[in-house]
Amino acid sequence: MSAVQTRYTEAAIEADKELPIIRITRDFRGTPAQLMKAHTDPELYARWVGPDATATRIIDWEARDLGSWRYVSTHEGQEFGFHGCFHTVSDDKIVQTFTFDGMPDDVALETLWFEDLGDGTTRLHAQSLCDSFEARDGWLASGMEVGVNDGYAAIDRLLESGEL
Amino acid sequence: MSAVQTRYTEAAIEADKELPIIRITRDFRGTPAQLMKAHTDPELYARWVGPDATATRIIDWEARDLGSWRYVSTHEGQEFGFHGCFHTVSDDKIVQTFTFDGMPDDVALETLWFEDLGDGTTRLHAQSLCDSFEARDGWLASGMEVGVNDGYAAIDRLLESGEL
Repeated sequence: MSAVQTRYTEAAIEADKELPIIRITRDFRGTPAQLMKAHTDPELYARWVGPDATATRIIDWEARDLGSWRYVSTHEGQEFGFHGCFHTVSDDKIVQTFTFDGMPDDVALETLWFEDLGDGTTRLHAQSLCDSFEARDGWLASGMEVGVNDGYAAIDRLLESGEL
Repeated sequence: MSAVQTRYTEAAIEADKELPIIRITRDFRGTPAQLMKAHTDPELYARWVGPDATATRIIDWEARDLGSWRYVSTHEGQEFGFHGCFHTVSDDKIVQTFTFDGMPDDVALETLWFEDLGDGTTRLHAQSLCDSFEARDGWLASGMEVGVNDGYAAIDRLLESGEL
């Protein structure tokens, strides 16, 4: 007898009850190394990040401990910039800061790690820490789930096609 | 009639009740620009940071947006390393990540800003955001107040001597 195990083929996006944190859980048919590559290779990252209707241009990218990143996404002619530092880039974990250029005083601390579930599936765990519940709830109300779900579906397609 | 205004000639170190945040408030006889210099010039920083009984050696230092920093403090022959990114360095504000090398999975997001009180005094506001109350309370129980108070007294001396 085996327990039924939940599979996150769509992202679960959850607000922590005690802390100003958003948690995302999502399963992929791939290895932790492939998921790390999707998050650290700038050309691949630009292909999947954000809503389908946006095009992303990488401005700076140093995916290493104490490196930095900056990109611009274009949606219906409008540009949206984002930037941050990579604090940690290890084999299965990324810790980074995250700021939307339109709200330069808001800085989130993001932690991503990749868990090998042992059957060809890797679980992405993402945690985004804000310094107030208002900032956290602002992100949750922003429509972020469109970019999250479109982006992760694009990773699925890169894995299926063998491009990742 | 004027209200009596609190002056923080010693650091007030406070735990937020709702959030995993440590807040520090400290007044200095100097300008915001002098306080920024104390926190961004590596040679000055090494002279004041930490407990009096430690000596600090800067390893890396790029005090700019998306720069990074790393230093080692020596205390009774033992070395303690610290590292992080500078996310933001503006005229009166620094946002940075902070990790003690001995606890590499613990990353705090620190925000410092300098408020001109208008009478030759500048108020330092520091906020250190952790991703759990356990991590935050661990810092508070670590004896951190020795380094904070010794370090800020060393800034007082640098201001008095005209070296800052």
